[in-house]
Amino acid sequence: MKAEGRRLKAEVRRILLVSAFCLLPSAFSVSAQTQHDLILDAALTSPSAYETLSYLTDEIGPRLSGSNGAALAVKYATSRFREWGIDVTNEKVMVPHWVRGEERATLVSHNDQKIVLTALGGSVATPAKGVTADVVEVNSYDELKELGAKIKGKIVYYNNPMDMDLVHGGRAFEAYRKAVQFRSTGASRAAEYGAVATVIRSVASASLRTPHTGALRYDAKLPKIPSAAMTTEDAMLVHRLIARGDRVRMHLVLTPRTLPDVESANVVAEIRGSEHPDEIVVIGGHLDSWDLGTGAIDDGSGAAMSMEALHLIKSLGLKPRRTIRCVLFMNEENGLNGGRAYAAAHKAELAKHVAAIETDAGAAAPTGFSTTLKGDALTAFEGRTAFLSRLKANRFEPAQETGADTSFLVEAGVPGFGLVPEPLHYFDYHHTPADTLDKVDPKELAADVAAVTGLAWELANGAGLR
Amino acid sequence: MKAEGRRLKAEVRRILLVSAFCLLPSAFSVSAQTQHDLILDAALTSPSAYETLSYLTDEIGPRLSGSNGAALAVKYATSRFREWGIDVTNEKVMVPHWVRGEERATLVSHNDQKIVLTALGGSVATPAKGVTADVVEVNSYDELKELGAKIKGKIVYYNNPMDMDLVHGGRAFEAYRKAVQFRSTGASRAAEYGAVATVIRSVASASLRTPHTGALRYDAKLPKIPSAAMTTEDAMLVHRLIARGDRVRMHLVLTPRTLPDVESANVVAEIRGSEHPDEIVVIGGHLDSWDLGTGAIDDGSGAAMSMEALHLIKSLGLKPRRTIRCVLFMNEENGLNGGRAYAAAHKAELAKHVAAIETDAGAAAPTGFSTTLKGDALTAFEGRTAFLSRLKANRFEPAQETGADTSFLVEAGVPGFGLVPEPLHYFDYHHTPADTLDKVDPKELAADVAAVTGLAWELANGAGLR
Repeated sequence: MKAEGRRLKAEVRRILLVSAFCLLPSAFSVSAQTQHDLILDAALTSPSAYETLSYLTDEIGPRLSGSNGAALAVKYATSRFREWGIDVTNEKVMVPHWVRGEERATLVSHNDQKIVLTALGGSVATPAKGVTADVVEVNSYDELKELGAKIKGKIVYYNNPMDMDLVHGGRAFEAYRKAVQFRSTGASRAAEYGAVATVIRSVASASLRTPHTGALRYDAKLPKIPSAAMTTEDAMLVHRLIARGDRVRMHLVLTPRTLPDVESANVVAEIRGSEHPDEIVVIGGHLDSWDLGTGAIDDGSGAAMSMEALHLIKSLGLKPRRTIRCVLFMNEENGLNGGRAYAAAHKAELAKHVAAIETDAGAAAPTGFSTTLKGDALTAFEGRTAFLSRLKANRFEPAQETGADTSFLVEAGVPGFGLVPEPLHYFDYHHTPADTLDKVDPKELAADVAAVTGLAWELANGAGLR
Repeated sequence: MKAEGRRLKAEVRRILLVSAFCLLPSAFSVSAQTQHDLILDAALTSPSAYETLSYLTDEIGPRLSGSNGAALAVKYATSRFREWGIDVTNEKVMVPHWVRGEERATLVSHNDQKIVLTALGGSVATPAKGVTADVVEVNSYDELKELGAKIKGKIVYYNNPMDMDLVHGGRAFEAYRKAVQFRSTGASRAAEYGAVATVIRSVASASLRTPHTGALRYDAKLPKIPSAAMTTEDAMLVHRLIARGDRVRMHLVLTPRTLPDVESANVVAEIRGSEHPDEIVVIGGHLDSWDLGTGAIDDGSGAAMSMEALHLIKSLGLKPRRTIRCVLFMNEENGLNGGRAYAAAHKAELAKHVAAIETDAGAAAPTGFSTTLKGDALTAFEGRTAFLSRLKANRFEPAQETGADTSFLVEAGVPGFGLVPEPLHYFDYHHTPADTLDKVDPKELAADVAAVTGLAWELANGAGLR
């Protein structure tokens, strides 16, 4: 198997080189359309992004900020760019270091049944022996407010299922944004009325007793209370028992710890522009992941495809007019410090950032891009992207934000683009132990690489957007 | 919600009673076909089986032999029959008492990545500190034999994916039987050559990092070594790493204990036959479950539907010619002691058992029955089951065995029938933490009740089978 794999890889590299040399006597002598096709052809047949992703996920594993895995990922990405002969640097980012501990719960009111849950990222711990309290179900912040003092000493359960009609209607991210509010702010909102802990229903579009973690945000003015996500099954159980009129009493133990901040890094690599090196197209995903899975769809694949954009252009011997810069952000999941640090460190050149492409929405087949462009600017740009139609990736959707890490660039006026892979199954795996390499189809990942590299090339070589 | 639920239940009960009194001036005055339709109509509109299942799963929870949950299930089923005014007894069964402990593993060769796994039922423990050893992948017992002494001191990984073509072709149980051999006998086979532990790939048709447990059988002549099932994702990871040529080294900790046997019981209830009370139709599923989930599909639903068969017949005021006996077996999952004990205790009357129906294949919509009948006997019987066609449950498939608990009856010459619900998703949930109430559709469960009650009625009233 191994030898065969090596032969296959060698063969693909040979084809790539032959393509580069035979079809491209000079990058400047072929039309833009031919360059786009060359990029797409090469992307669709290269195993390189999948190899990068395999290393990040299978060999390194989880990469939560501050962990050994995150540090290994920075080293690996840096060395891979060096191997490819691409200029690369590490830019310092201080990151939180939150470490999951024990996490378990039982229904003491119901035969000590086990409740499967996982601490939300950033949660404080319960007392070592846990907390035991009645569970109160809450469906909205209005209801929480009405209950008021009645939740004092209780565990608040936010019953927040994803709207599956939205998920099946192609709007999974909208369903996510609607459901996730209780994960983000529910702990502090309940603490205001004296709750001792909160549990949410995992923000999930599928479950086999699978918990979904994610970051919470404490309000600094309020007491910090522990918070966890139950699996869909456990949340439905608690809901059914309460609906039946049962008194539901839970014993909850969470022992996460927040250790001192750790120095980490964004990995920044670039191919300098041949005509306008000071004008920059950023493309990037994030290197960190949650700790439960190996972060294949979130966001090993996004990191791998952004890396591959540079690798492909370099391998094909193409010289972009503007600089194309890959930024592998650190700490997207629980702090956004990498995105913030990049914007701060490069403040002086943000006016020269012609666009930012974010790859952080999974690795299913590409459907197009979200974009901050609108009106005539969008129409004009769409006219330049017919080359994406062969990938069925030429749909551009106007959006306020096109990615979390690049939101700081967008706020500074940089036009944003976010790759939109088919979103149907993204929240089946997102932030779970099941976010693993097997969820990525190498052919779909290759199509994503084709789409983002094609877009980056167009942005680096065509007319400016602003 | 609660008040509305109560109103709905009261309404359904009212309809049932009205049906019974208006449509059935006397059970003896209506034709067999009308009786079948009456049974089916009542079954399809009654929430009672789902209520039974809800109690077993939501209120009691997991019911592994020897556990408090199993004892509560015996009490509950007994009292429910009494409430229904149906004769019921408990028949003693001694059962093993295996208790799951800590279970964890890491790949020490790969950044201490966590491996998600679960101990196989009956497994012995590792030493308290665990075992650490290289992992050797084995795909067949032939390969194991060839490796021979090379697996000494190693952890053997049996790579045994389910054949998904069979699963999608309606033959999930066949795929299961093919894949499960390594779970049952793999530990002892590997112990013969000096392996220190075995890990299998969960016998699963779907996974979100979901482990599937199940019983192993040790060969008494060989050393007992610990054995666990990895999730599909973890098994694929280990496979990929080994295929890549990596040395894979695992640290494995399992701390299950086998406590002294516990006295438990089969729950045996019956409606005596009006003409041939000594002739018996058995219908039954099992009350015990694995410990990871709440045993909704395996086999709370089977127990609930077999109980409901008696309840429906009683509620409708129907008097079967032969006795219909519901047997709720204990210890199907890890010993089969209930099935064995029933056959032993009733040895003298087995010749008078006219048939045994087993309900232990999930709660999806009914498709028909497996049966030990064949040839002309089967053809003749099929002619009597047209009433099942409105449920699309009139397919009879000849089989050697029609269920584990009733296999002892079948061996003694009793004609066997096994309900066959649509099997496509059964092994998504089977023996996992995800075997929970939400996996059962109340309408499909009601259709199963209709099918098995109709069949039991026909067997209790029509011509004998032998």
